[in-house]
Amino acid sequence: MSCWIRRGRVERDERQLPVDRDTVETTDMNYYEQNRQTFLEGLQTFLRIPSISTLSEHKPDIRRAAEFVRNELSAAGLVHAELIEGEGNPLVYAEWTGAPGKPTLLLYGHYDVQPPDPLDEWKSPPFEPTVRGNDIFARGSSDDKGQTYILVKAVEGLLKTKGRLPVNVKFLIEGEEETGGEHIEAYVSSRPARLKSDAAVICDTEMFAPELPTICVGLRGIVYAELHVEGANHDLHSGIYGGAAPNPMQAMAEILTALKDRNGHIQIPGFYDRVVPPSAKEREAWARLPFDEAEYTHKEMGAKELVGEPEIPLLERLWARPTLEVHGIRGGFTGEGAKTVIPARAMAKISTRLVADQRPDESAAQLKEAIRRATPKGVTAELKLIHSAAPSLVNPDNPFVRAAADAMTEVFGKQTVYIRSGGSIPIVGCFDQCLGIPSVMLGFGLPDDNLHAPNEKFHLPNFYRGIEAVAHYLETLGR
Amino acid sequence: MSCWIRRGRVERDERQLPVDRDTVETTDMNYYEQNRQTFLEGLQTFLRIPSISTLSEHKPDIRRAAEFVRNELSAAGLVHAELIEGEGNPLVYAEWTGAPGKPTLLLYGHYDVQPPDPLDEWKSPPFEPTVRGNDIFARGSSDDKGQTYILVKAVEGLLKTKGRLPVNVKFLIEGEEETGGEHIEAYVSSRPARLKSDAAVICDTEMFAPELPTICVGLRGIVYAELHVEGANHDLHSGIYGGAAPNPMQAMAEILTALKDRNGHIQIPGFYDRVVPPSAKEREAWARLPFDEAEYTHKEMGAKELVGEPEIPLLERLWARPTLEVHGIRGGFTGEGAKTVIPARAMAKISTRLVADQRPDESAAQLKEAIRRATPKGVTAELKLIHSAAPSLVNPDNPFVRAAADAMTEVFGKQTVYIRSGGSIPIVGCFDQCLGIPSVMLGFGLPDDNLHAPNEKFHLPNFYRGIEAVAHYLETLGR
Repeated sequence: MSCWIRRGRVERDERQLPVDRDTVETTDMNYYEQNRQTFLEGLQTFLRIPSISTLSEHKPDIRRAAEFVRNELSAAGLVHAELIEGEGNPLVYAEWTGAPGKPTLLLYGHYDVQPPDPLDEWKSPPFEPTVRGNDIFARGSSDDKGQTYILVKAVEGLLKTKGRLPVNVKFLIEGEEETGGEHIEAYVSSRPARLKSDAAVICDTEMFAPELPTICVGLRGIVYAELHVEGANHDLHSGIYGGAAPNPMQAMAEILTALKDRNGHIQIPGFYDRVVPPSAKEREAWARLPFDEAEYTHKEMGAKELVGEPEIPLLERLWARPTLEVHGIRGGFTGEGAKTVIPARAMAKISTRLVADQRPDESAAQLKEAIRRATPKGVTAELKLIHSAAPSLVNPDNPFVRAAADAMTEVFGKQTVYIRSGGSIPIVGCFDQCLGIPSVMLGFGLPDDNLHAPNEKFHLPNFYRGIEAVAHYLETLGR
Repeated sequence: MSCWIRRGRVERDERQLPVDRDTVETTDMNYYEQNRQTFLEGLQTFLRIPSISTLSEHKPDIRRAAEFVRNELSAAGLVHAELIEGEGNPLVYAEWTGAPGKPTLLLYGHYDVQPPDPLDEWKSPPFEPTVRGNDIFARGSSDDKGQTYILVKAVEGLLKTKGRLPVNVKFLIEGEEETGGEHIEAYVSSRPARLKSDAAVICDTEMFAPELPTICVGLRGIVYAELHVEGANHDLHSGIYGGAAPNPMQAMAEILTALKDRNGHIQIPGFYDRVVPPSAKEREAWARLPFDEAEYTHKEMGAKELVGEPEIPLLERLWARPTLEVHGIRGGFTGEGAKTVIPARAMAKISTRLVADQRPDESAAQLKEAIRRATPKGVTAELKLIHSAAPSLVNPDNPFVRAAADAMTEVFGKQTVYIRSGGSIPIVGCFDQCLGIPSVMLGFGLPDDNLHAPNEKFHLPNFYRGIEAVAHYLETLGR
């Protein structure tokens, strides 16, 4: 679940793939340049595995993807490469700890992907990775197989060219990120000694604008749930019973409308109480980011106009305000033609994104209570929690964050910017709470990568350059 | 689309099938009694044809059902039995006009049925008619194949036992009733000479209570439509874009909620202007009908409580007040697990039932305008009309209605009651406007027949007795 929001103009021709070689002194750039075709072929193999974690029929593909990552890490020269089996999808672990006295990094990514539907909107099949121009199109190409593979290949390059790493690393790659990642959290909390590190590096985010090095220092949390509404215990004829029968879809509409007003203000008592507004400094920095609202609205989002709390600036709405969204809704007859039925039940998938210092458990309870109050006569409504994650904020003055910013600035030749994300990476909160370490979020996705949507892509220059940037970051830290 | 609402207690054991033979002097009851097994087998053959008019893949079944009816009418001794081919599903026509000076009746029914879904809730397959106790279970058993077949068998019995009919008859059986019946209306309006009759007889309704002879004198009309709401032109990630992106499902909820308040009052300007309240006499008669509200609510509807306009008595809400209902809704991700998407579009099937003197065109325009006003920022909403029908009221003092009431009273041994229906039978308005004839609605369905729902059934004693009652009505009219 890549998390970015950012945007801006592409100001130079990326096909040139400029690398400021002067600033990258230590890493053996020849190795990375010579092996691009091999990196691409490896990524394609990874992308062909439909490792959709939200659909149980893909369990075998999940395993294949986990084994692929384990084998890659082992071949890269890491040790103790293994699948960690538990209740959920396997975790992949591997380490290299031959640099005593140097920092230890916990490298995180995920090998699971979102479902590809609606299938008919893909220009090439989602699990047949297809290169068009400088992009590779496939489900998971940007979120997060491409970025996970950057970490693997960066470490592999250092080990192959130098025989050692400048720092210690522990890889922990999961297969349930798109379903909430509860099992990795259980594992992390139970194995703090094995996972002991100085910082986590997460490669699952985006650049704010093309070629603008970006570090994410804030994430929204999430509470994702199913709302089930039931009226009568069987479907009823709308002529015979209409005027007396409870309609669960109308009731669903009434509940959803009661929870959020037309200006995007969530109408759940107490919901905003813990929301911490961004500092004046942060707001000023956000206002300076290169951002073309018209292009964002019409081209990137493909929308007519933006919605949401009108009194709050856009980036703050996306990064520092909670939301409530419907993801899907189903009920009654939606086939061809007409069926005059009042159905017995309806279901909606909903979530709320949370910001610091909201707490998932408390927010879920507030949501549940608000639904109870909003439920009209004649129906029952039940909220089934699917997953949740706490919001998180990282201190940008942390030395691992600063070093990452410096390395990115060197490789990309531009000042690294700090932003937040509207998305959720649940593991960040877990690393903070269970291991006491900050997360450094380096991202190489682009704003138009179509995450969670048809035609997801990854920009190949970012893929190649990302490998180099991570290698350079490790070298910077090792000095 | 059977149209009744009624209810009450079953006060005697219907398995006894009591026929007051003393009151039925003319019809040869032996014939009808002796042929019950043949009638049942014929009905079963009819019910095995999945003639679902709302699903285009069932076109061949529609034709088979039409041919079955034509062949039955021909075998019964009617002449000019034919399929009338046009743009839609074939109409079936047949006549017997050998009683000069006697009235001519236009006998109407429909051979098409509703879709059977949800399939997994049927106890026996919907197109494998299954007799359990005194009921036959199958899609269309009550609505309307069983009742259409009553008309065919009543006429067949008279022709076979007496060689002639007491009145002239013209059968007109359609195959698009469940999709709005627009083609029969075009045909009727274009062929007034061929269809010239004194009254129509429609066998597509129910008894208010078991063994309580019932005539329906009012029907609600309908405007059925699809509401399409579109936000961005592609699905968006709810983390990245949530807080700024228009959500078509939330917008759909807002529109639906704006159109009707929580007390069932439709919030469409001008919508109630033409609504004619029932007379004091009608209200008094309705209040005297045998009706157990608790049984109706909990047992028949399977609901916890009734909803709708609290200041209007229940039967008036169902028979004399317009409604607005959602029949189905679809949008976004509704599969297993979690997908954090803000989808590009959502669709709902909605309808409004109309009462005299509302006009479908005007009501549809009012609905469209109300949706336009209720559509929130950032989305577009489009209403696509699927079909409509005018409401209708029949004068209970019409001689054909009175004669039917008398015949029913004789056969069933109880005073016939006049009710209205909350459902719609579009052809009634058409017969009135195009042919200038009243419709006599004799129904033999029962309240718990599960019309348009899983486990639709028809009560076999009503089937057999209905055939006798219609035969007796024709004889009464012929005297």
